Amino acid sequence: MLQTLPRMISLEGGEGAGKSTVIALITKVLRELGESVVQTREPGGTPYAEDIRQLLLADHIEAPAKDVEVLLMFAARAQHVRKLILPSIAHGAWVVCDRFTDASFAYQGAARGIDLQKLELLNQQFVGVQPGLTLLLDVDVPVGLARVDARGDRDRIEKEPAAFFEAVRQGYLTRAQAEPERIRVIDANRDPQVVADEVREIVTAYAQRHLSA
Amino acid sequence: MLQTLPRMISLEGGEGAGKSTVIALITKVLRELGESVVQTREPGGTPYAEDIRQLLLADHIEAPAKDVEVLLMFAARAQHVRKLILPSIAHGAWVVCDRFTDASFAYQGAARGIDLQKLELLNQQFVGVQPGLTLLLDVDVPVGLARVDARGDRDRIEKEPAAFFEAVRQGYLTRAQAEPERIRVIDANRDPQVVADEVREIVTAYAQRHLSA
Ligand SMILES: Nc1ncnc2c1ncn2[C@@H]1O[C@H](COP(=O)(O)OP(=O)(O)OP(=O)(O)O)[C@@H](O)[C@H]1O
Ligand SMILES: Nc1ncnc2c1ncn2[C@@H]1O[C@H](COP(=O)(O)OP(=O)(O)OP(=O)(O)O)[C@@H](O)[C@H]1O
Ligand SMILES: [Mg+2]
Ligand SMILES: [Mg+2]
Repeated sequence: MLQTLPRMISLEGGEGAGKSTVIALITKVLRELGESVVQTREPGGTPYAEDIRQLLLADHIEAPAKDVEVLLMFAARAQHVRKLILPSIAHGAWVVCDRFTDASFAYQGAARGIDLQKLELLNQQFVGVQPGLTLLLDVDVPVGLARVDARGDRDRIEKEPAAFFEAVRQGYLTRAQAEPERIRVIDANRDPQVVADEVREIVTAYAQRHLSA
Repeated sequence: MLQTLPRMISLEGGEGAGKSTVIALITKVLRELGESVVQTREPGGTPYAEDIRQLLLADHIEAPAKDVEVLLMFAARAQHVRKLILPSIAHGAWVVCDRFTDASFAYQGAARGIDLQKLELLNQQFVGVQPGLTLLLDVDVPVGLARVDARGDRDRIEKEPAAFFEAVRQGYLTRAQAEPERIRVIDANRDPQVVADEVREIVTAYAQRHLSA
């Protein structure tokens, strides 16, 4: 069984869904409520975990086996949880995280075909916690890719076929269906201001129920 | 269930037991029998796995959590198995490895207190193979430490208390008791020539039963 951290919020979604845009807003909303907030991201979030991220993302003369990527991803996450997330929460802060475990299920699981039971096992044994609230920014694949494209990141996009991103999207939606309480799906095809208004509303209502003191 | 690789031999033992001395002899014996041999070591053994080793062994401003060390260790091993060990065996070579999974059970498990079931789970899910023969060089802790000491490696020794090395030794012996067929315990307190003679005898007899063609 995973321990739920009420004062942790994660942001999920495919490429160009708007996660990095929305995370700043969440942090702002919580701070306006007088809360202290640690804003972070995965993979990474601590110096050691960022070094694992480097190993995962840098070009290398030898490719890691799929299973090896998964182990490194969970090693980075285990470090992040123990050295940053849990201590921050113990000190009374909120933690807002750009991607967390759901991303492993969508990318490594649904899209790369790693057995979901293997992922669940690593999650239970080495992560052990989940956010109280997850916002899934759901965007049509071509819309998200066009945004990243416009941002000038074409190189990265071209590495994967469209089917890969469709599988990521479906992987996320399947998880959201299984955990509708924790994972709130937000239609991120809409104008930034409309998305922002909905995010603000959800986060404000949620935070009211979990304020410090 | 683990798949046994008859043509893989691992060498285990505490500090200064004589593994690096004996591995050269095993390779020599197999080559004299006309076999081809890939000699390797853990953690590491491939460029990517050696990079994971670096992350494990180098000093870092942030210490990895115990669980994180375990995940990295198994990530390096999973890569080693898939990219070097299995392909070498598929090509008809023997693989002789200085330390393998038993070392994780002795060091991370028995000595550092990581739950053995967690290790077994990683072993089953991400390694999946075991050597057909393992030679455990068993040495009294003070004897082994004195040898490393004489080699001029005192710094490394001083990092751990003697109880740590006793726990490693007992961890190894417990595994050997549970798998007497695979793990052969060799008294490594004796003179190098006596140890070498016994190793040569065991390896020759074993290899005769598993020669190529
Ligand atoms: N609702 C929106 N409508 C249109 N453009 C948007 C919207 N949200 C974000 N953008 C823009 O789309 C681009 C991608 O947004 P952002 O970087 O926040 O997405 P992301 O989910 O973090 O992407 P990545 O997966 O690359 O990290 C940015 O240029 C951003 O300004
Ligand atoms: N049976 C033996 N008797 C005495 N000295 C030995 C014996 N075997 C090895 N040595 C010496 O002890 C030292 C340690 O041996 P070796 O490096 O082979 O051990 P090791 O198990 O590989 O150690 P480490 O755990 O540090 O890798 C070396 O200087 C070696 O020459
Ligand atoms: Mg982003
Ligand atoms: Mg050695």
